[in-house]
Amino acid sequence: MKQVRLGIAGLGTVAQGVLSIISMNGGKIRDRSGIELKVTRVSSRTAKPEVDLLGAKFSQDLSDLVADDVDIVLELIGGEDVARNLIEAALDANKPVVTANKALIATYGNDLLSSNVNVPIKFEAAVAGAIPIIQAIQDALICNDFHQVVGIINGTCNYILTAMEEEDQPFATALSNAQALGYAEADPTFDIEGVDAAHKLTILAGLAFDTPFELEQVYVEGITKITALDIEYAAELGYRIKHVGVAKVVGAEVEARVHPALLPSGALLANVNGVANAVVVRSDAAGQTLFSGPGAGGMATASSVLGDVVALARSGESRDGGARSKTRYIEIGEVICSNYLRIPVRDKPGVFAQVANTMSEHDISIEAAIQKEPVAGSAFVDIVIVTHAVAESVMERAVATLREKLGELEVSQGDISRIRIETLE
Amino acid sequence: MKQVRLGIAGLGTVAQGVLSIISMNGGKIRDRSGIELKVTRVSSRTAKPEVDLLGAKFSQDLSDLVADDVDIVLELIGGEDVARNLIEAALDANKPVVTANKALIATYGNDLLSSNVNVPIKFEAAVAGAIPIIQAIQDALICNDFHQVVGIINGTCNYILTAMEEEDQPFATALSNAQALGYAEADPTFDIEGVDAAHKLTILAGLAFDTPFELEQVYVEGITKITALDIEYAAELGYRIKHVGVAKVVGAEVEARVHPALLPSGALLANVNGVANAVVVRSDAAGQTLFSGPGAGGMATASSVLGDVVALARSGESRDGGARSKTRYIEIGEVICSNYLRIPVRDKPGVFAQVANTMSEHDISIEAAIQKEPVAGSAFVDIVIVTHAVAESVMERAVATLREKLGELEVSQGDISRIRIETLE
Repeated sequence: MKQVRLGIAGLGTVAQGVLSIISMNGGKIRDRSGIELKVTRVSSRTAKPEVDLLGAKFSQDLSDLVADDVDIVLELIGGEDVARNLIEAALDANKPVVTANKALIATYGNDLLSSNVNVPIKFEAAVAGAIPIIQAIQDALICNDFHQVVGIINGTCNYILTAMEEEDQPFATALSNAQALGYAEADPTFDIEGVDAAHKLTILAGLAFDTPFELEQVYVEGITKITALDIEYAAELGYRIKHVGVAKVVGAEVEARVHPALLPSGALLANVNGVANAVVVRSDAAGQTLFSGPGAGGMATASSVLGDVVALARSGESRDGGARSKTRYIEIGEVICSNYLRIPVRDKPGVFAQVANTMSEHDISIEAAIQKEPVAGSAFVDIVIVTHAVAESVMERAVATLREKLGELEVSQGDISRIRIETLE
Repeated sequence: MKQVRLGIAGLGTVAQGVLSIISMNGGKIRDRSGIELKVTRVSSRTAKPEVDLLGAKFSQDLSDLVADDVDIVLELIGGEDVARNLIEAALDANKPVVTANKALIATYGNDLLSSNVNVPIKFEAAVAGAIPIIQAIQDALICNDFHQVVGIINGTCNYILTAMEEEDQPFATALSNAQALGYAEADPTFDIEGVDAAHKLTILAGLAFDTPFELEQVYVEGITKITALDIEYAAELGYRIKHVGVAKVVGAEVEARVHPALLPSGALLANVNGVANAVVVRSDAAGQTLFSGPGAGGMATASSVLGDVVALARSGESRDGGARSKTRYIEIGEVICSNYLRIPVRDKPGVFAQVANTMSEHDISIEAAIQKEPVAGSAFVDIVIVTHAVAESVMERAVATLREKLGELEVSQGDISRIRIETLE
């Protein structure tokens, strides 16, 4: 039996989850792995709350964690500067680190991973909560060449879009319900504008494609412009709208983008609902695999933190430190996608023809279209079209032209809504 | 850089997949893990086929694999006796083993795992092909107390049921299409009668619940009695029929069973179609996680074999050898489930009342019922009911009584079809 002594930074929900799990399942973990997890130190800058620290010494000074009686440091405070300093101090003292901090890894991961290369840092909990997606990519599927990673990696967005779809809630209602249930922050910007998903996608893309983490290369779009109408039309066309992160290899380059997308309703990923997360991985040997589960929550995230801890304790492995050669990321303008367009117009003869002509002038083929009768008493209709795959820049030019022409015809009734389509093929 | 020398037993599709992957992705594996995989020996009792052996020595004598120039033995021949002898010889020579042989592990795993405890055996590929479900249970989720494992773990059954549902094929047609496509063997018994799924469930239950593998304790039922009518009625009631393996903890005991089941149509698992496999794991910290992907195929299975190889090479870990304490398995008669019953009868007054009375006499509540008008010109109808949860033995007695009473009334028009319901909750 091997005892491994843990120093935990933070006393938020994830840290409390770690303490609970060790308290509940420490015996099971020992029986299964031969490793006894012992929390020797806990540190939090705020006062010590009413939590059982399992006999650990408490300190408000984080630097107390880098001590002789700590074998592995768990960075569970979040934020950037303080967390980074702690991790660097731990690595300098040859102490492996486990962190749940996605912003930190996405932003400073390259530096952290390239310093002190013999001391491991693990961060399964940084992406998709309880889902062991990093272990899948780095261990189980290690012999695969990865082609694509597509994930629903923000639970707040998925909760909101699911509520809009299943309960016919407008965006604002779904958001405030999410806030009431604790699924969205008081300031939800970070989630609903896609920033959180971009952090996670940065990490997934770097790991799957053996490249550095390049947050600034990820195209980011949130869900604030999605309307109930879009969800309805998408359903009619055989799709569901999800907020996804997509990273894929295109020739020698990589594209990485976070945005709402129409997914074919029959696809497993399209049926991941509520706050759940899921990631689809496509690779040469394993084919298409999908991993789903809770993307957040103290216990779920702590489950991944402790998975990393046991892996470190078992193997004493040194950092993976794979040869991460820089690759070119594709500009969003060059990305090729099918598109859904909803064009709100005044119902006048020739308007649909104008839409069709504009697409045709830009060499964009239309795969499907819906134009309903106007609702009784209304003069307004939505023209909905689905295009074949086309470069973003071409699509953008076509939409701009269309906007202009509908303006000239004085039939425009609101902005054109464009949502990309992911076929998952 | 560390070179790891492999001795491969077998030259079937999985062994060929292993060779292809090393040939295609050997460089990537080396860059990622610092481990160079070198195939030094290949052995197959049949003649050497036209396959690139990557420079390995070929022999028709399996015992040649246990040689000084082999670090890890890959048992990919299948079958029981010869495979078992090879594995024992490898372990005796201190050579770690990776196997894809589910029947062998389910049947002899306890003996193999308890002998030579310092030499590891890994068998990710034995369950659900490319899906890293064993790694998830043993590594990523190791700190969890597992409550339930429910899986679609036989691709042949899933292909047949999906084709029956989506393409309205009768069982026999779906089976012969599966055979034509290579998804079912010429003699499909092993798959369609549930034996293959029972092997896999035995392994999953043992690992999740820290108990020995007990194949003979698994209740086994195949899909041969499922009809198109059952699939239709299930859909009407909000369910899809899948062939599942269910293992769960009930108090201090375990229940493990393989049979067709109605799953709520909205559940992610119910939307796993075609030859795909998927496993849902419910545990205390991680909550409900799902893992899906190809359950068979040379490359997909080889992906898991090589994941194990790299894990062994990286860690040099000794056998997990967890304390597998025997537990009581629950007899099928004590298992508690909701049930779907389809009762084909002659359309006469009082028949439905007889069904309802019989259930009531056995204290079985009816949750939902369908009775259609007879098709024009026919005097026969199906009475379909969904029961609340009830012990199997009670349900069986009620069905026997009902069979008798309908016989007395001379209205029975075929045997009663009973399918269990899994709510996944």
